[in-house]
Amino acid sequence: MASGSEDSGAKTDPPTGDPWHWESERHIYENSWISVFERRGRKPDGTPGLYGIVRFRNRAIGVIALFADGSLTLVGQFRVPLDRWSWEIPEGGGPPDEPPLTAAQRELAEETGLSATQWREILRTDISNSVTDETGVVFLATGLAEGIAHPEGSEHLSLRRVHFPTALAMIDTGEIRDALTQLALLRVYRMAMTGELPPELCAALLDQRDD
Amino acid sequence: MASGSEDSGAKTDPPTGDPWHWESERHIYENSWISVFERRGRKPDGTPGLYGIVRFRNRAIGVIALFADGSLTLVGQFRVPLDRWSWEIPEGGGPPDEPPLTAAQRELAEETGLSATQWREILRTDISNSVTDETGVVFLATGLAEGIAHPEGSEHLSLRRVHFPTALAMIDTGEIRDALTQLALLRVYRMAMTGELPPELCAALLDQRDD
Repeated sequence: MASGSEDSGAKTDPPTGDPWHWESERHIYENSWISVFERRGRKPDGTPGLYGIVRFRNRAIGVIALFADGSLTLVGQFRVPLDRWSWEIPEGGGPPDEPPLTAAQRELAEETGLSATQWREILRTDISNSVTDETGVVFLATGLAEGIAHPEGSEHLSLRRVHFPTALAMIDTGEIRDALTQLALLRVYRMAMTGELPPELCAALLDQRDD
Repeated sequence: MASGSEDSGAKTDPPTGDPWHWESERHIYENSWISVFERRGRKPDGTPGLYGIVRFRNRAIGVIALFADGSLTLVGQFRVPLDRWSWEIPEGGGPPDEPPLTAAQRELAEETGLSATQWREILRTDISNSVTDETGVVFLATGLAEGIAHPEGSEHLSLRRVHFPTALAMIDTGEIRDALTQLALLRVYRMAMTGELPPELCAALLDQRDD
């Protein structure tokens, strides 16, 4: 197999559906957020294999809330699975039957107290597709007004407002490691560079002043 | 709680370590890729709670392999947990005691047959930190030479070579949904815009010709 011939304009259809042949699926575990299954069958090469699948009850929602001056609010919290602190955009979960925008508005208000007059979906993502079916939707919120935050009992949050170039630099230094946050920041960077945002906001986002 | 006062140059230390009080941890499931645990204890607000944690045996490795003409190789494969096809950069897993670069070189060769003379780590990421401890490392590989691919038995791959702006557009259209691939492409876009890559490569990456 070579490294791929360059596309010649024709759209290439994916060759197949699922190349595994499944024989059984066993339910292993369930809580309010995930369920775990183990499937057994034959791999694409015909040999026996198994696959552990983690299904998520909620879709991940991220909100990059940009102020007119080019700053944004980061939420800091301890992430139990990694056993360490993480600076992130406001994030939460929304059930599949709820519009992602409704979940985004709720999570932003709960975690930061902010409300916004303009909302725009800017990215859909498959977060960890080798093992999970978790998907994520990222929104850009502008036209912000401050209010009172009311986080859930499992959340112990800290808030911090940083200028956009500072947040980008925090990816480079490893201070921002959360994938959904990195994606939101880099997606907005590209929107600013390609003029997909209002000119005044583009200028504010790319202004290299010190924080 | 307000939406965060703007940083005034002083670095804010995260306020706490783990705000949960854990009482027990139960091992639920294990296979060659993941293990699942359930912890019980008290939430930050003192009420009883539980937390399901999925631990990954390997770290995720992604390689964005750029040719001098500004094109890159995408790998297409069926992703079982999502039950659909996915176009991605070459990806794989590396055990924690193996240098990420070694895993990256192996995965690139296995999936595409490519080898590279220059390697550069461009991103570390926490992939899905609400439930898992999965981390990822992304490398940029340049100075490419073609060879013979030899994918694993569980892999049924298709290769496609596209120009960099085409790959970016595939994020916008939803054809590229894998988070590690989206991160790699957007990170390289920013590196090209800020001159972090050789000038000829920057020019080739940003050249808006049709594929």
